[in-house]
Amino acid sequence: MKKEVIIVAGGQGQRMHSALPKQFLLLGGKPVLMHSIECFFCYDSSIHIVLVLPENQLGYWEELKSAYQFNIPHDVVTGGNERFFSVQNGLTHISGNSLVAVHDGVRPFVSDETLHRCFDGAEKYGNAVPCCKVNDSMRQVTQQKNCAVDRSVFRVIQTPQVFRSDILVKAYEQDFSARFTDDASVVEILGENIHLVDGNIENIKITTTFDLLVGEALIKSP
Amino acid sequence: MKKEVIIVAGGQGQRMHSALPKQFLLLGGKPVLMHSIECFFCYDSSIHIVLVLPENQLGYWEELKSAYQFNIPHDVVTGGNERFFSVQNGLTHISGNSLVAVHDGVRPFVSDETLHRCFDGAEKYGNAVPCCKVNDSMRQVTQQKNCAVDRSVFRVIQTPQVFRSDILVKAYEQDFSARFTDDASVVEILGENIHLVDGNIENIKITTTFDLLVGEALIKSP
Repeated sequence: MKKEVIIVAGGQGQRMHSALPKQFLLLGGKPVLMHSIECFFCYDSSIHIVLVLPENQLGYWEELKSAYQFNIPHDVVTGGNERFFSVQNGLTHISGNSLVAVHDGVRPFVSDETLHRCFDGAEKYGNAVPCCKVNDSMRQVTQQKNCAVDRSVFRVIQTPQVFRSDILVKAYEQDFSARFTDDASVVEILGENIHLVDGNIENIKITTTFDLLVGEALIKSP
Repeated sequence: MKKEVIIVAGGQGQRMHSALPKQFLLLGGKPVLMHSIECFFCYDSSIHIVLVLPENQLGYWEELKSAYQFNIPHDVVTGGNERFFSVQNGLTHISGNSLVAVHDGVRPFVSDETLHRCFDGAEKYGNAVPCCKVNDSMRQVTQQKNCAVDRSVFRVIQTPQVFRSDILVKAYEQDFSARFTDDASVVEILGENIHLVDGNIENIKITTTFDLLVGEALIKSP
């Protein structure tokens, strides 16, 4: 099936106390977001790429594209106040009858193998969501106390989360809920079972200065 | 109160497919385990350090100490087949009437601030365990299906886990159970409430080549 990806870059930069939104921070001398887009283009150069950006960043993105001679074709769509509305806006630019990935713009290290598992899984099962096991002990916290939990039953979820376009479009016709923390949580309300596949451990989300340090190390590693 | 620490280094190196146990891998040209020991010595040079190592690594450790002119005073104790038995062995070398930290030998980046919060919390509440929030979406997996869970109620647990010595000694008089994934889980069986404090995000456990890459970046960062 035809492949499409909605790359959502909504960050405004507060979390790292930086004036620069994190998707524009430099990794190996190039904005994080360009690396993320390249992951998909290098995986399949025929993929249709839809980039969702906050309205106040559209001009800056044009400047960056020109400065870095960034030529990978993509549509640019204006984001909403919540990630949910940004994905909704992105979906209006999807061709349809396709497999649609939704990816965090600040995950520049998704591997070809993860992308293959995600698109392949979505073609077979309707959706595929990449995850990793938890390596440290975990505890669950309530107002009164906290207790050990069995970490083996939990998975940390990454993106891209890939869906058959008809399923994703239908899911995003729902009203917004604060419980929607990612696309899988929007889709499973429809009764869809989520199909988990292995992610890759390097597929981190760049949200802190620590993550940026890790990202620099990954960019430089052979 | 007097401070003591049991540093447990039980790795045999299988996980990284390396002949060298991970506690001996080099970070910035020095074995991981030496960095971990230094964290405690730099925090409080009067701390009593007990190092637990597998029997077949005792000779190699002596060679390393000599090669690296490693002079931080510490007792060396032989480990057991499970982490639980290694801590038990370590406890036989504790002076007592103290605050006892139990630390993973492969966590070389615990900060002074985390150590302060742990020892301070244990003095006040009997125990203190460092943790971090979960930044990614999480799902819970059962045999049949998987479902989104609220990540805000979970914490990822680090070490050192610090306890009043009498509490820890009593906890480790119990029989071993496979449910004991860390020291907090051993202690809470006695009915103790676990007191969580903030860890530091750099306080990673070096268990994969990816972790080693991150560790190298941390060592080099200013």
